[in-house]
Amino acid sequence: MRTAYQDQLEDLTNQLGAMCELAGAAMERATQALLQADLVLAEQVISDQDVLGEHSARTEEAAFVLLALQAPVARDLRSVVSAIQMVADIDRMGALAVHVAKIARRRHPVHALPEEVNGYFSEMGRVAVELGRTAQEVLLTGDIDKAARIRAEDDAMDDLHRHLFNVLMDREWKHGVASAVDVALLSRFYERFADHAVEIGRRVIFMATGELPEYEELPPETWRD
Amino acid sequence: MRTAYQDQLEDLTNQLGAMCELAGAAMERATQALLQADLVLAEQVISDQDVLGEHSARTEEAAFVLLALQAPVARDLRSVVSAIQMVADIDRMGALAVHVAKIARRRHPVHALPEEVNGYFSEMGRVAVELGRTAQEVLLTGDIDKAARIRAEDDAMDDLHRHLFNVLMDREWKHGVASAVDVALLSRFYERFADHAVEIGRRVIFMATGELPEYEELPPETWRD
Repeated sequence: MRTAYQDQLEDLTNQLGAMCELAGAAMERATQALLQADLVLAEQVISDQDVLGEHSARTEEAAFVLLALQAPVARDLRSVVSAIQMVADIDRMGALAVHVAKIARRRHPVHALPEEVNGYFSEMGRVAVELGRTAQEVLLTGDIDKAARIRAEDDAMDDLHRHLFNVLMDREWKHGVASAVDVALLSRFYERFADHAVEIGRRVIFMATGELPEYEELPPETWRD
Repeated sequence: MRTAYQDQLEDLTNQLGAMCELAGAAMERATQALLQADLVLAEQVISDQDVLGEHSARTEEAAFVLLALQAPVARDLRSVVSAIQMVADIDRMGALAVHVAKIARRRHPVHALPEEVNGYFSEMGRVAVELGRTAQEVLLTGDIDKAARIRAEDDAMDDLHRHLFNVLMDREWKHGVASAVDVALLSRFYERFADHAVEIGRRVIFMATGELPEYEELPPETWRD
């Protein structure tokens, strides 16, 4: 019985890991769809959302059954409760990838992005995918040091977001209002994606230690090139 | 013992209700700060976020203790798990109010909104506050019919959001890029606030019935003036 229970707990973690992978892959494709005005890829991200939705429902259900039948305590209870919370975060990461894909689709065959900001979004996409990968890794390994370092990657995303807003706001933006609105919303979607990855890191720390660190307690970004 | 347990469950619901009230009040004040470029009010919304944060931590902790010590099943278990999920939604509603207040503060003493769109935001603020109130009510009463009808109010918010984007995108927008970006983000903050209220309604239905309805299964907005 204990073995089945431990298996169930491990399954829960693996399901969350698989969800992270799907969310990261969705953001990777959405970014490519955005940068290349690729309609087929955008449609794929949008239709794949159901797959992540099914995973969410299944994972939530599994957590619920564990609570009902096994009444876990201490660290196991923290794992199951955290799993329920992380499902919401990962689900949202997938939804944000879909938002990106929908903007790419809406503007197709035109590129949603003026070429001037392609570099920002290429980098935001790269950081987002990296964050998804790190979130998956810390989920599966329970590595709390690496979980805490997710904040540094999020800080890099925030920097990109801020710089992009300076481009929109302070310089002479030549691409019109519609394009500025798209860029602002897109930038926000990437920034939120990163925030959810940080949340996953915080929850992994909570699972291991019983303490949920404040964002400010995590190590910030150090100097980068 | 059972009585203490029932009291704890009821306390949990009351705490969520109190959180909804705080989030609604925050959005009410944030809207006023936005429409009237009221810096004092904006600052108040921003500093009050800690109060909601403390409530969140306390409510999550109470739910955790209930799970650990009482190992609830069936409907009670659904209530506790839903409480944990709703804490995240209500917390986010408060964060969105803070985002609105921060834009009001950043633009002060200038009004963040061109007068042309004041009416939209006044109405979005009204609907948001109403949604916060309805969410609180269905939480406390468990009225699942009313919970389902939250979607109709959310549809009204989506309409406002869409119309506002038409104003930004299709007509000749005369207020510049910075202002358009502010308006787009603000509109999104209100729309997301409403989405979280719908989530609370869905969770209340889940608590009562064990079935989590899809958004599309909820009754849509009927014809309005």
